[in-house]
Amino acid sequence: MQDMLKNAARLLDRRLREQIPLTGHIGLEITAWDGRGLIMAAPLLPNLNDKGTGFAGSIATLATLAGWALITLWVEERRGPADVAIYRSEIDYRRPVTGDFFARCQLPEEGALKALLASLDSKGRGRLKLAVTVCQEGTEAVFFRGSYAVRLHPGK
Amino acid sequence: MQDMLKNAARLLDRRLREQIPLTGHIGLEITAWDGRGLIMAAPLLPNLNDKGTGFAGSIATLATLAGWALITLWVEERRGPADVAIYRSEIDYRRPVTGDFFARCQLPEEGALKALLASLDSKGRGRLKLAVTVCQEGTEAVFFRGSYAVRLHPGK
Repeated sequence: MQDMLKNAARLLDRRLREQIPLTGHIGLEITAWDGRGLIMAAPLLPNLNDKGTGFAGSIATLATLAGWALITLWVEERRGPADVAIYRSEIDYRRPVTGDFFARCQLPEEGALKALLASLDSKGRGRLKLAVTVCQEGTEAVFFRGSYAVRLHPGK
Repeated sequence: MQDMLKNAARLLDRRLREQIPLTGHIGLEITAWDGRGLIMAAPLLPNLNDKGTGFAGSIATLATLAGWALITLWVEERRGPADVAIYRSEIDYRRPVTGDFFARCQLPEEGALKALLASLDSKGRGRLKLAVTVCQEGTEAVFFRGSYAVRLHPGK
């Protein structure tokens, strides 16, 4: 099971690199996925800003993609290929990021997941909200909430 | 006057490229600044996502930086070197972006600007909220609201 999860995360990392050029420049990578929670990491150096700390654009991108990856992995394992797109988000930059950083997110409560699956099964599309925290070495620096739309590939 | 504005925008573009590596990969550029409104543009190609449209991370970064650039240009013209940092934002992705795109923002109402200058003069720091719209060829696609903190360089 653990190997299957690792393999799915590795394939998604490759999809990101191949299909979204900016992800290669940010240097992001899924470093953990256990079926319920995901960690996506990035080095500080290519993501510096004018103040020598983590660039807000890189941090927002990492948080957005961590949520996107979590939903993609969870949905595709259950219902096959899907398009996931963010349609709304809010972000609070509480502390500057001064070292390599990572985004951490967890699946929401069971009710929201059941509602998403029911909507996918009846209409082929659904929505899910997620919270993502961006940290460096155990310090929580940035708080993100994203709303995502999911659509199963037609003819699956 | 128009030349002075153009020159300030060109210098800020150079600062972005030199100090924030990711901006070079996004290919963003300040294409207009008239002292009250700013346009920052980016090509679609380096900013594609897995669906072949504009990547949310690139769009959020462009919007964040357009507001940052507007405040930096306006404050530095009046009070000299300053650090500007975003501390909160919200974004609504209403329509997919299918071509080269740009972020457009305007200074807020006069009262907010006067309050910012008064705060900078008394405490050396202040805050400002801005709305930014991301468009392609006249179509408004994404709506962004950002809250920025400004701090004058000590010893100015």
